[in-house]
Amino acid sequence: MRIGIDIGGTKAEAVAVDDAGRIVARVRRSTEHGAEGVLRTARDAVALVAAEPGVGSITGAGVGIPGQILGGRVLNAVNLGLTEVDLGGDLERALGVPVHVENDVNAAALGAHATLVAERPAAADRPMAYLNLGTGIAAGLVLDGRLWGGSGGTAGEVGHISIDPAGPECPCGQRGCIETFAGGASVARRWGRGGELPIRDLFDAADAGDPDALALRDELARGVAAAVHVLTLTVDPAVIVIGGGVARLGDRLRGIVRSALVERSARSIFLTSLALPERIELLPPDSSAGALGAALAVPATHEPALGR
Amino acid sequence: MRIGIDIGGTKAEAVAVDDAGRIVARVRRSTEHGAEGVLRTARDAVALVAAEPGVGSITGAGVGIPGQILGGRVLNAVNLGLTEVDLGGDLERALGVPVHVENDVNAAALGAHATLVAERPAAADRPMAYLNLGTGIAAGLVLDGRLWGGSGGTAGEVGHISIDPAGPECPCGQRGCIETFAGGASVARRWGRGGELPIRDLFDAADAGDPDALALRDELARGVAAAVHVLTLTVDPAVIVIGGGVARLGDRLRGIVRSALVERSARSIFLTSLALPERIELLPPDSSAGALGAALAVPATHEPALGR
Repeated sequence: MRIGIDIGGTKAEAVAVDDAGRIVARVRRSTEHGAEGVLRTARDAVALVAAEPGVGSITGAGVGIPGQILGGRVLNAVNLGLTEVDLGGDLERALGVPVHVENDVNAAALGAHATLVAERPAAADRPMAYLNLGTGIAAGLVLDGRLWGGSGGTAGEVGHISIDPAGPECPCGQRGCIETFAGGASVARRWGRGGELPIRDLFDAADAGDPDALALRDELARGVAAAVHVLTLTVDPAVIVIGGGVARLGDRLRGIVRSALVERSARSIFLTSLALPERIELLPPDSSAGALGAALAVPATHEPALGR
Repeated sequence: MRIGIDIGGTKAEAVAVDDAGRIVARVRRSTEHGAEGVLRTARDAVALVAAEPGVGSITGAGVGIPGQILGGRVLNAVNLGLTEVDLGGDLERALGVPVHVENDVNAAALGAHATLVAERPAAADRPMAYLNLGTGIAAGLVLDGRLWGGSGGTAGEVGHISIDPAGPECPCGQRGCIETFAGGASVARRWGRGGELPIRDLFDAADAGDPDALALRDELARGVAAAVHVLTLTVDPAVIVIGGGVARLGDRLRGIVRSALVERSARSIFLTSLALPERIELLPPDSSAGALGAALAVPATHEPALGR
């Protein structure tokens, strides 16, 4: 049995997955920040899920976590107050089984793909992108059933493609990056109010007719539509699954993104032929794609443990 | 021995390739337009190369040609005055061997990859993009050593990604597509003079200090840089090989594109980390990548003829 752990900025989730890739147990806890806090969160989440009924002996564990991943080390995970930690090494020593550490977006992409294939087996061989709308924007690509890593770790970083040289400044040094229009942190900063759920507050204000909110919501939709467009004209995924914190808005997000894609396509026979609105799907808000994908990134017991 | 044919708007090239993938003979002739003209061009090019010394019995033929490809049929190849023709079927009947028809950019991508691997064997497993700067702009992707087809034929169509909502109108119905800044047809139209080689004329005028030419040349470089940027942040190719008619400008093009990439990176530590200028290479002007790739798209005799 494999364990998968998804460590987010506020919550961590752990699942136990059987050899057929089915989730047999699931637990959630809050995330502690800093290097020691993250290690404690991971160890504790594993212990909690291992104690669940039906969870047998553990053969491996995977972790999905924000930041740069170098082997089992995690670097520069700003949202977790983390500069560097040997998460893989620490967990291997604690658990005595192989541990694989993966970028959180890539892990969620694997999990979203597995979920899609469980519902529609024909999706197994079709290319899929997972578009994560969180603090920032990035995509994970599953091509030929496997995570696409690119040549050096920049695959799927669509958030920093500029779509408007006159757009807002991006902390990356460019202007008009997709992330400045649709990244949670950028939108929240531009909205400037809203407490713990600024994007929800923005959507509420837009629904109430606030012109600033309407404009920002339109730009958010435009940014997501551009990311879908860019992915389609490069990798050409059959399905683009949208997830992440902002995607928890569910139908309220789906509605404005679909409208933006339809409006974009109405201007162009070429864009209409791409069937952009038909490519997108939203990850359900209660999905465990991140933790599931982290577990699936670890070889199952009946497979040889290659490439680690 | 396999034959590869590259049919361009003005010239067609045919090569004979041995089982090791080496070119053993090469011929060129002018392209005739229209359905009958294209069929005659292809048959004639095969006959010419087959008569070259050292060319043995032919086991298959591949054709790279602009337009949409549907099985062996070619649709809407505007530059060839062609609405629809069963090029694959016609050649199979004429030659009595299997014929594979491929989009010209994809064929050139395969040929560019094979050329790269012949020079640097370590490139075999690294992702590569071939960026074609011709009348329009499109890329062919070689991932894990194979042509990446995407889910429905829009993979690599980076020419119609908009990078500026205030940019020039594109015939596709959008504004500010990469192709409006850097596509040969669009640049020639905006330049408005220059006879048979308008882009070369534009570069000459820019070198002579003409401000309109300098502005258009800068925009061309900006468009190519954006395509390199977009490919890097989606597919993340180790190498982006630039070819096509506009790339025949050689070092004159390389210089302005490298400058645009360096300038872009100077604004951003993130972009600097992508090492964009180091990723690009120019296809030599006399390269037979298109014809070579068309031949390589056909299975060699010692391989089972799968997937046709």
